[in-house]
Amino acid sequence: MSPKITTELLKQLRQVMKSPKYVQEPVQAYIVPSGDAHQSEYIAPCDCRRAFISGFDGSAGTAIVTEQHAAMWTDGRYFLQAAHQMDNNWTLMKMGLKDTPTQEDWLVSVLPEGSKVGVDPFIIPADQWKRMSKVLRSAGHDLVPIKENLIDTIWTDCPQRPCKPLITLDLSYTGVSWRDKIVALRSKMAERKVLWFVVTALDEVAWLFNLRGSDVEYNPVFFAYAVIGVNTIRLFIDGERMVDPAVREHLQLDSTLEPEFRIQLLPYGSILPELQAIGAGLSPKEKVWLSDKASYALTEAIPKAYRYLTPYTPICMAKAVKNASETEGMRRAHIKDAVALCELFNWLEKEVPKGTVTEITAADKAEEFRSQQKDFVELSFATISSTGPNGAIIHYKPVPETNRTLSVNEIYLLDSGAQYKDGTTDVTRTMHFGTPSAYEKECFTYVLKGHIAVSAAIFPNGTKGHLLDSFARSALWDCGLDYLHGTGHGVGSFLNVHEGPCGISYKTFADEPLEAGMIVSDEPGYYEDGSFGIRIENVVLVIPAETKYNFKNRGSLTFEPLTLVPIQTKMIDINLLTQKECKWVNDYHQKCRQVVGAELERQGRHEALQWLIRETEPLVSVQ
Amino acid sequence: MSPKITTELLKQLRQVMKSPKYVQEPVQAYIVPSGDAHQSEYIAPCDCRRAFISGFDGSAGTAIVTEQHAAMWTDGRYFLQAAHQMDNNWTLMKMGLKDTPTQEDWLVSVLPEGSKVGVDPFIIPADQWKRMSKVLRSAGHDLVPIKENLIDTIWTDCPQRPCKPLITLDLSYTGVSWRDKIVALRSKMAERKVLWFVVTALDEVAWLFNLRGSDVEYNPVFFAYAVIGVNTIRLFIDGERMVDPAVREHLQLDSTLEPEFRIQLLPYGSILPELQAIGAGLSPKEKVWLSDKASYALTEAIPKAYRYLTPYTPICMAKAVKNASETEGMRRAHIKDAVALCELFNWLEKEVPKGTVTEITAADKAEEFRSQQKDFVELSFATISSTGPNGAIIHYKPVPETNRTLSVNEIYLLDSGAQYKDGTTDVTRTMHFGTPSAYEKECFTYVLKGHIAVSAAIFPNGTKGHLLDSFARSALWDCGLDYLHGTGHGVGSFLNVHEGPCGISYKTFADEPLEAGMIVSDEPGYYEDGSFGIRIENVVLVIPAETKYNFKNRGSLTFEPLTLVPIQTKMIDINLLTQKECKWVNDYHQKCRQVVGAELERQGRHEALQWLIRETEPLVSVQ
Repeated sequence: MSPKITTELLKQLRQVMKSPKYVQEPVQAYIVPSGDAHQSEYIAPCDCRRAFISGFDGSAGTAIVTEQHAAMWTDGRYFLQAAHQMDNNWTLMKMGLKDTPTQEDWLVSVLPEGSKVGVDPFIIPADQWKRMSKVLRSAGHDLVPIKENLIDTIWTDCPQRPCKPLITLDLSYTGVSWRDKIVALRSKMAERKVLWFVVTALDEVAWLFNLRGSDVEYNPVFFAYAVIGVNTIRLFIDGERMVDPAVREHLQLDSTLEPEFRIQLLPYGSILPELQAIGAGLSPKEKVWLSDKASYALTEAIPKAYRYLTPYTPICMAKAVKNASETEGMRRAHIKDAVALCELFNWLEKEVPKGTVTEITAADKAEEFRSQQKDFVELSFATISSTGPNGAIIHYKPVPETNRTLSVNEIYLLDSGAQYKDGTTDVTRTMHFGTPSAYEKECFTYVLKGHIAVSAAIFPNGTKGHLLDSFARSALWDCGLDYLHGTGHGVGSFLNVHEGPCGISYKTFADEPLEAGMIVSDEPGYYEDGSFGIRIENVVLVIPAETKYNFKNRGSLTFEPLTLVPIQTKMIDINLLTQKECKWVNDYHQKCRQVVGAELERQGRHEALQWLIRETEPLVSVQ
Repeated sequence: MSPKITTELLKQLRQVMKSPKYVQEPVQAYIVPSGDAHQSEYIAPCDCRRAFISGFDGSAGTAIVTEQHAAMWTDGRYFLQAAHQMDNNWTLMKMGLKDTPTQEDWLVSVLPEGSKVGVDPFIIPADQWKRMSKVLRSAGHDLVPIKENLIDTIWTDCPQRPCKPLITLDLSYTGVSWRDKIVALRSKMAERKVLWFVVTALDEVAWLFNLRGSDVEYNPVFFAYAVIGVNTIRLFIDGERMVDPAVREHLQLDSTLEPEFRIQLLPYGSILPELQAIGAGLSPKEKVWLSDKASYALTEAIPKAYRYLTPYTPICMAKAVKNASETEGMRRAHIKDAVALCELFNWLEKEVPKGTVTEITAADKAEEFRSQQKDFVELSFATISSTGPNGAIIHYKPVPETNRTLSVNEIYLLDSGAQYKDGTTDVTRTMHFGTPSAYEKECFTYVLKGHIAVSAAIFPNGTKGHLLDSFARSALWDCGLDYLHGTGHGVGSFLNVHEGPCGISYKTFADEPLEAGMIVSDEPGYYEDGSFGIRIENVVLVIPAETKYNFKNRGSLTFEPLTLVPIQTKMIDINLLTQKECKWVNDYHQKCRQVVGAELERQGRHEALQWLIRETEPLVSVQ
């Protein structure tokens, strides 16, 4: 991977930062966040402005360019990747390390007195604007909104904003109709005494209307906003797609509906003037509900006194707790996904020794097997197919320049998943196709112990996920090992593979308490720079637990693994497992064999079934 | 315990809330926080205003009185106690429970439009003022400072502010002279480019000058403020105590010192005008450093542009990391404390069956044995001596009305500690003098497992204590049990038994990372309302750990127990312990026997030594 040469681009950007054509006054710094106008984590090519200016294309990162400096903030998953992709115009700011300054503190330290710091008000979330603006102002600088995106002015071959056809989801997938979701939302609005709710996150629009799209790779969403009133519904969406009879039927656009369920269609670009009109027409005590992560531009459209901002919207909260139809769909999707991976691993076991499989061909083969499964739509994120030292690059994606051949001498890490119409998957398995070293087995086993500690944890109803994070690290810590990422994230139901408001991380204290029906990943790891990476990831469902005393009727919770793919026993140093951990592995493998075995049988995949049976042989505990 | 009847007092308070004699405009609500002008946790009798108005005298709680309501916020430790001590004029607000409103939200819900909420600006910390004021203002109310404390106006027999003699501590106790502490502080001030540092916390003043006092029961502190400039030292302190030749010598008040070490003495009450004068004389870029927990009154004395506020002061940070002299002192203090407890438990074992020992006499006996030890000063907090159902009242203190007789049929919980000139102790042991039930043993053993999980935890340098909290709960959680308090607090060195900035709690995310030399408590528990309480508490020192891989040279930490008092093996269900846990108990008991045994021998306390030897017999592991 050679870095992108950005000298010329930075020169151009620094010119437009001073050009009266684009800015009222010159700005001494310009911030290029990762997101789009919906604060999406995964974004369309036209929104990849930070990657365009810097070369670094990981999923998280913020670039800041001043007259003298160019700096990039990203987290532990991307330290190596960012260092590889950026040329020496750029300074890497490693978030999470003690000595790394925040963006605000860094700006204050490098800017000349009384500087202006520019940012696109549609791209920066309101809460972040507030935080940065406060620090900058107290140091005598100003954060200023720049209407025209300055990257777009120098990005001559910027791709068009996508506008792909929509998929409608019926009740068998969603469990609840969009009308009932609107009713529930309005009841939450009534509880909080708000008149309007503005839906800005793309997955929230998709979930609310039981629609899916493909405007953004991996995330089945489409560019749209919605504004829900007490008896109006406005959907801001562009293109031909609303002509599709299936969509019109699904949204009942041509039926005679009660007025409060009639959907008014408006152009995507008209959200700002429409919101401004709503804002201008409010009477005292009338409130508009927005996420505090909505863009600064939209938030400012509502006068401050009328805003009702919350970190998590009622849609985000409702979407996180999966209903019975969604849970059943997720179970089905994970069984199909396991079938595909059994096929893949059986194939790899035969092919790797021949020296003909690369990270890219392995990833392609995984996609091929997945695409044979019913209701497959697309991958849920770029497959991380990495062998040997590439495994230590936490969010690695193989490209021709870095592509390594799988061998019997290196650890192989595959973190992959798919979107099926009935659910979203995300699974990581780490394998060795030869003989792992004692050290590799030792590290793998500590990671496994951490995985089990979270998966088997029992905790009282109302516990926040971040309180479980250390369970995943304890076995690693005992030997002086750790990993620089969180342990788990929320997972959508045929929606974004990363979603709020729950998760398992030492970094997040704003997570909402776990409750039955939520779905998160459990993915501890260990990474040895330059040598190998290990991660073991299952998607798990929060379920009620049976405990002896049940927390004085507060209720007990635990997890049920939805992912049912064998964990390579060859990598386990059984001497390091307790009897309980051994039993967990054996019970898990028995379930894989029963549930996925039946599906492999049904699909007539006999060779993969034999592989599954071999790989799920019980461990014999030695303690 | 019968509740305090507050009808008349509340009537009087509501009158002064409207009286032009005390308030410019009537206030519709008056807040009575727990603290004093130094935001101390333990306070002098003259500062116990919240206890005076409500009857509830636990260490944490905030009262708010409106024209219609009187409400008290406190945490899980005090739910039962507060309910017992308050009459039905009061509503108990149980903090930490999901449905309990914050003070601000509650005020907004009960106040008429455009209300004024009054508070003493010396008693409310600046950060809390800011938070409350913001919420109240956004709801159309106003938080207003009331110069005269309204409780004091109705408290006719309010005791005088104490002004007791001081104790000087020499280098053998402190390890660092006050001059060197001033030098270190000034270097931190230079780093942050501040000209003045205001010392407002009583333990910080005491630590800085290597002085101790006894103005507040249990905390060896004295009423004073200090203001440190780049070459001035001002100490605000009242009374005869500065006439004491030992104090004058210690502070070198009568020597010809370099000017930057000459201490200027000023009256305690002159802090506000002196700070206002400093504030008025500042030039741009000149900053004054204050804790963000300093009072609103003192914070407001410095114009906003000149304030430098941090959650933890450099004194708080330096004080938390004990040097070799302090650590050795803490070890000595804990050995002496263990001697006293061996004597006590040996005595209890003989006396309890006779039915003559009560909670109060047991507490008195504990104090008697402690007072026989060298350098004993006083207790470090009110002894929690509780048997049977009283054990479930987490911060219980026996009084004649609640005093129970210890018996062979009930669990006895003793949480106690002392101030010695060389260190502060805090230890909890839970014992049964007859035959514990299987359920009691089960609960005790889970608590013990949690205690060991924290004590034996290994974690990377830089880990915050709150990440260890769940380790203490895991064994309890597995069976559906939990406890409603944090797991540990920082402990001072012959200073406050509760100190920042570190701790182990699910509630605190603002704690500073643990580092070698910090001292915290490890005290999980389990409480069965109406039946019994269990808690096992050691004070532990953060020390470097030996790990196989040492976190890539980031460094490894673990804990060393300073408390060396046997944990009653009769209460342990050995079937529930792992081999590792069994070994921990046996190693711990062996150390108790060796170290404390030698001291009992030296002091000629042969009977207590025999008790210690019996109580430290190794467990025989069954797994």
